Amino acid sequence: MNPRNALNFSGGPGALPETVLQQLSEALIREPVTGLSVLGISHRSKWFAEVVDELEANILGLLGIQRGYQVLFLQGGATQQFSMIPMTLLRGVSAPAEYLQTGYWSQKAIPEARREGPVRVLWNGQPEQYQRLPQAYELASAPDAPYLHYASNETVEGMQFQYVPGLDSVPRICDMSSDFLSRPCPAERYALIYAHAQKNIGPAGVTVVLLRDEIIERVPDNLPGFLDYRAQANARSNFNTPPVFAIYTMLLVTRWLKQDIGSLSAMDQINQQKAQRVYAQLDASNGFYRGRARREDRSLMNVSFNLATPELEQQFLRSAEAAGLSGLGGHRSVGGLRASLYNAVTLAAVDTLVSFMADFAHQHRHAAPG
Amino acid sequence: MNPRNALNFSGGPGALPETVLQQLSEALIREPVTGLSVLGISHRSKWFAEVVDELEANILGLLGIQRGYQVLFLQGGATQQFSMIPMTLLRGVSAPAEYLQTGYWSQKAIPEARREGPVRVLWNGQPEQYQRLPQAYELASAPDAPYLHYASNETVEGMQFQYVPGLDSVPRICDMSSDFLSRPCPAERYALIYAHAQKNIGPAGVTVVLLRDEIIERVPDNLPGFLDYRAQANARSNFNTPPVFAIYTMLLVTRWLKQDIGSLSAMDQINQQKAQRVYAQLDASNGFYRGRARREDRSLMNVSFNLATPELEQQFLRSAEAAGLSGLGGHRSVGGLRASLYNAVTLAAVDTLVSFMADFAHQHRHAAPG
Repeated sequence: MNPRNALNFSGGPGALPETVLQQLSEALIREPVTGLSVLGISHRSKWFAEVVDELEANILGLLGIQRGYQVLFLQGGATQQFSMIPMTLLRGVSAPAEYLQTGYWSQKAIPEARREGPVRVLWNGQPEQYQRLPQAYELASAPDAPYLHYASNETVEGMQFQYVPGLDSVPRICDMSSDFLSRPCPAERYALIYAHAQKNIGPAGVTVVLLRDEIIERVPDNLPGFLDYRAQANARSNFNTPPVFAIYTMLLVTRWLKQDIGSLSAMDQINQQKAQRVYAQLDASNGFYRGRARREDRSLMNVSFNLATPELEQQFLRSAEAAGLSGLGGHRSVGGLRASLYNAVTLAAVDTLVSFMADFAHQHRHAAPG
Repeated sequence: MNPRNALNFSGGPGALPETVLQQLSEALIREPVTGLSVLGISHRSKWFAEVVDELEANILGLLGIQRGYQVLFLQGGATQQFSMIPMTLLRGVSAPAEYLQTGYWSQKAIPEARREGPVRVLWNGQPEQYQRLPQAYELASAPDAPYLHYASNETVEGMQFQYVPGLDSVPRICDMSSDFLSRPCPAERYALIYAHAQKNIGPAGVTVVLLRDEIIERVPDNLPGFLDYRAQANARSNFNTPPVFAIYTMLLVTRWLKQDIGSLSAMDQINQQKAQRVYAQLDASNGFYRGRARREDRSLMNVSFNLATPELEQQFLRSAEAAGLSGLGGHRSVGGLRASLYNAVTLAAVDTLVSFMADFAHQHRHAAPG
């Protein structure tokens, strides 16, 4: 970590590995293979086709997928996927698609699906202020549902599924925007997984879509090409000019995962340690730090917590900024505090945070009533 | 220009100014204001809101627009605009929208419009192999057309409008993807101008849309938010996570235009000189180099030309690559050769190209029959 730099605990766009940033910084001037700035390389070049091929192979390899899936790199973020999924699988269908409403992000997908067809909210955590996820026995999925949609990690509320919900007979679709490639994943139990890049795998401006070949076959004929998984797949993510730089960044991140970290299991072990250290600080604080989510549903990616008063939270943020700890404010929809611990956040950065939290609690304990 | 680097004459993504690349390379490690990598800065930060505000002001200022317009920064390229425009202005309308079909790119917009409503191709250059643009008297625009759509510059064929076609009473919509901010433009004669960034103003992955307030008021109610100009405008291009890095790059490019170049008139003068030097080489070659477009319609941005045989063209490309001149192949749809002379291509780079062309012609003149 460059000592001049602030440590980044932002909810996203988040930190990227220091070695990747170094390579990108050099490639901005001169990408080694082509001798051009990476921003000036044609998306129709052999170089870029090889970038896409290697990136797809790296993602499939990290997930242990042998066949039957394709990987697309699209624009428009998870938001565009909220629409493309029901355009593909719900338009003209009478059985309702099933959605789990477990927090801010999974909730946003639902009105977009309703534009295209019927939706059944299989579980809604809003009455409980999104403080817990459903347990498996609470989900009565219909065997004929066109698909089940959920988000594996809720960044705002700091909750993460520790099991795979739904029936294997119903196409399972998952928004993994905030934990894709952060841990092993039984990808072959999913019909479609999507993840925007700006948490764990790259910069804002590109979204990974991993989907079964049979989903591609079900695309209706009348969609504009950029919203059509089949057209995008046929064009190898080059239907129209793709975000070359963002895709190249993802390639470097997947190389880092393979070569520097080793595997998704190894990444998971590091992520578990990081989260454990922050949650341990919360739990040892005698209520000075108050975790937002139920303990069983705690996210390894986003630790959402509160202090006794909004004023004390503001003081925490000011002190943290002054100490070079950036991005610790909670999401604007819920306020409070949040430490995001995406793949590129190092154990050393987490230790700095935890020690800052211990000091702050020590100094301000008098301010916490009861 | 970094002496290690190849000179980039690519049709796009194209060259960017050397000083901008240098600033980006540093901001990849540490953006000066925030102390973070530019890839890790939140799109909800004050920093990013100021980037968007300054970028919008720079674009309006360069174009001399005082009021009545907004500037949006969207994903999805010009391709997404091919759909958003008719979704907004043609859905449910009975009078046909008017399209000028002057080359590869303007042609691509037409089928996307037909999905939404009736289209009248006001002029079609295909029977003449897209070797000329229409003259003003050839365009019989209907006063009640919902809009007229055309492309100001055809990158593939190397043709550029030197006048503003259509009636001022019909909303004029222009794809300026390949010449936006390359010359002064009477922007207030347009209802909507769009331009993807990757020619003159930034990297692939972001598209500028400049539109009159009254267009925003005409957005139908039932569009997904990311396809809705009103939702995007209300959110100040932050409806969902925008491509922060690409937008920041555009800010640096507009600063370069204002501070280093001075104005769009000054940029135009440089671009005129560059194109004049290349076309002069074509015209002085006694038919060794054969310009594709009619002389009056020649583009300042893209010089499309041929040699006597495809074999000689391949030899030209190999020799050019060996001499450090990159990206001179023609578009895959037409083949041949093309020198793209976007804003960031320097006069010095053009002189190197012209001198290479003179040498190549001298050495291979025997190969050109007649």
